[in-house]
Amino acid sequence: MTRKIIIIGAHAAGLDAASAARKTDRTAEITLITKEKKPAYSRCGLPFVLGGHIKTFDDLVVFPERFYKMMKLNLLTETTVTNVDSKAKTVDIHDKSGTKETLSYDRLVISTGADPFLPPIKGREKKGIFVVRTIDDGEKINKALETAKSAVIIGAGLIGLEVAVACLERGLKTIVVEFLPYVLPVLLDKAMADRVQKMLEEKGINIIVGKGAEEFLGTDKVTGVLVAGETIPADVVVVATGVRANVELAKNAGVALGQKGIKTNLRMETNIKDVYAAGDCVESIHLVTRRPTMSQLGTTAVKQAKVAGINAAGGYSTFIGAMGSWITRLFETEIGGTGLTEFMAGRSGIETVSGTIVSKTRADYFPGALPIRIKLIADKETGKLIGAQIIGGEEVTQRVNALSFAIQNEMTIKELAKAETCYAPPVCETWEPMVLAAEMLLRKLR
Amino acid sequence: MTRKIIIIGAHAAGLDAASAARKTDRTAEITLITKEKKPAYSRCGLPFVLGGHIKTFDDLVVFPERFYKMMKLNLLTETTVTNVDSKAKTVDIHDKSGTKETLSYDRLVISTGADPFLPPIKGREKKGIFVVRTIDDGEKINKALETAKSAVIIGAGLIGLEVAVACLERGLKTIVVEFLPYVLPVLLDKAMADRVQKMLEEKGINIIVGKGAEEFLGTDKVTGVLVAGETIPADVVVVATGVRANVELAKNAGVALGQKGIKTNLRMETNIKDVYAAGDCVESIHLVTRRPTMSQLGTTAVKQAKVAGINAAGGYSTFIGAMGSWITRLFETEIGGTGLTEFMAGRSGIETVSGTIVSKTRADYFPGALPIRIKLIADKETGKLIGAQIIGGEEVTQRVNALSFAIQNEMTIKELAKAETCYAPPVCETWEPMVLAAEMLLRKLR
Repeated sequence: MTRKIIIIGAHAAGLDAASAARKTDRTAEITLITKEKKPAYSRCGLPFVLGGHIKTFDDLVVFPERFYKMMKLNLLTETTVTNVDSKAKTVDIHDKSGTKETLSYDRLVISTGADPFLPPIKGREKKGIFVVRTIDDGEKINKALETAKSAVIIGAGLIGLEVAVACLERGLKTIVVEFLPYVLPVLLDKAMADRVQKMLEEKGINIIVGKGAEEFLGTDKVTGVLVAGETIPADVVVVATGVRANVELAKNAGVALGQKGIKTNLRMETNIKDVYAAGDCVESIHLVTRRPTMSQLGTTAVKQAKVAGINAAGGYSTFIGAMGSWITRLFETEIGGTGLTEFMAGRSGIETVSGTIVSKTRADYFPGALPIRIKLIADKETGKLIGAQIIGGEEVTQRVNALSFAIQNEMTIKELAKAETCYAPPVCETWEPMVLAAEMLLRKLR
Repeated sequence: MTRKIIIIGAHAAGLDAASAARKTDRTAEITLITKEKKPAYSRCGLPFVLGGHIKTFDDLVVFPERFYKMMKLNLLTETTVTNVDSKAKTVDIHDKSGTKETLSYDRLVISTGADPFLPPIKGREKKGIFVVRTIDDGEKINKALETAKSAVIIGAGLIGLEVAVACLERGLKTIVVEFLPYVLPVLLDKAMADRVQKMLEEKGINIIVGKGAEEFLGTDKVTGVLVAGETIPADVVVVATGVRANVELAKNAGVALGQKGIKTNLRMETNIKDVYAAGDCVESIHLVTRRPTMSQLGTTAVKQAKVAGINAAGGYSTFIGAMGSWITRLFETEIGGTGLTEFMAGRSGIETVSGTIVSKTRADYFPGALPIRIKLIADKETGKLIGAQIIGGEEVTQRVNALSFAIQNEMTIKELAKAETCYAPPVCETWEPMVLAAEMLLRKLR
């Protein structure tokens, strides 16, 4: 009998679940349902369209229509799932014409994602205040930027800073307001974050840390933001203060939740049989702390989704957890990290030893050598690497991956200090900066 | 009592041994002896000076004179060690003025390096035939290239190809002759090597594989090379057919040798007490096969030397082995690898499964995304990663390092296929090519 698989959501998680399901079961009837007009586009690309690096929002759409035909995926766009009945194994939908329908499933994958969280700041309903999640959001901001002269970004996380860079590149006076005491507060420790802040300020972005937006000013349309009693004029405001998992549908269907997201087992199956979940709405187990965490990164979403899709289609696969390996490029600087920050390690009860070194990305005498700064964090007791942060002019991404592999393999700082790396003058130093950082940290661990 | 440490050789290994010794023992009397005029320059940088990427050969000199003063290192240049008496613990030297002297040591580090191996080809004594090892070699080639119109490079190893690129960049008609059936024969498997050959040929380098140079033609000065009965005209010939460890001094002193280099224990100590060895003259244990190997890379040299220096100065450190992680950039293409090739694995008695994928270095829609090709090699029985080869437009170096870490941690292909990596559109794909390669290989391993 043909297996009916319904996937709620058709973005990073939804599509990877569908692809994996199709590869596992060639005959299954697979239906993807999304509220949005366009499925499966890269949300992470939105700031780079705003900055003009990518020509159009349509370029972000990963798959052409023929992909869905080739993979035999039923795609329902502009369609909302209003209810899941996990006993009857049905979902109620209504499309943009208002037509309601009930679809039955054998296996369900919930990949409802997350929505931007707008803090309850007075005046947040005014025009000219945006979030950055969908192509629709992107198009609205893009239009507003055409005539705007100044932008205030609320939140100095990855998306906030990427949008701030785009605003400056578009010629706007750009100010970032971060409530926490430094930029990228979840991803970097303060000393590293201060470097990023300094670099951004040197480029011309104004950054206010440790202060919150108190009110959005203006009558119908926003004209400014009140920050610590001071008015900052703004033609455009972008709020990028994080996302919250969309768990209502799951919750109403009886799916068990963790603190902030849907709970699943290793196979991405929820507490309800035949109901799987993947992506930004799901809790992961942190690879270092072994405790629940909300990863909410594209990489985690697609990995979870592949596992959910394989299992939903009758295969076997497990998801081992996440530890938030991340990367971005702001102007010409690459910034990334993996594992725990010192701050987060402390909150998890881990005593740490850390060390930071500065080196170069190529042999000192080779033209174009750029500075690179690496911070490594070790568990004081075991001497194992548990976190890394890197800021550099090039080749940061794959160093993050290398250190991610090191953490996943529970490599000690001692082992890392002895690790073999490659060398050629145009592309790196004889003594690899990651190894130098480990050597330095090793002296502190003794 | 002041410890007297003598180090024979003052390049990558010699200098790192000296630095490590100094850091371990602040009062030791440390003497470095080299035959060359200039100590501690980057041999790996020579082809890039020839190509014009680095301005002068002097730029390759890593340390200024004040470094030696600051570190309190006695540096004897243009001085030859003629004999080591390991019983009397003395070395006989003579300097360029002909003065002979006998120095006594408490600890000796032999870092005599390696010399280019010139195959016994008829006519190899002619003018215009060069090797690439020293600044002196570099200067001679540089001068010859000024008036030459054509160059033949014998040997398509790393140095051969790097010099060939430099010759083409200098506007010479450039031909590479490789006796083995494909380029980079020790470092790549054929299918990957063929890609490199094609790229080089498209750039304008003529490559002849599977044929040896039979004779260097010309009267006093070389005018051509006879290859498989055919005459190839050449104003300049560069022979880059590998190096042979300089072990004569060590051998005469009673130091035990392996098949091709000096044998040491984990502390880089030879069979003779208080005599250490490091660098291109030394045998390493291969991290995958656990058998002796000649690494002869700068990275291995400095790592061994640091260990030798620490131990010679009374500290404790061990060298765990090597597996030849390497990288180069030829034109705009980065090529690198780590661990065993399939060919070398086979010769070591390891049955392998391998897989190659092609992907992109950035999100498909992000401008500047370049192709990347990754080959992974696994041990068929254990499923562990034992080798990797990468050809790509950017970010190859640190992928080699990431996979080097993976091999050193005995990561299985299954683990690698599940490994967490980072993602942002300007710097990589959502599904990291290394992970995709592992996934593909995993299907073959089942």
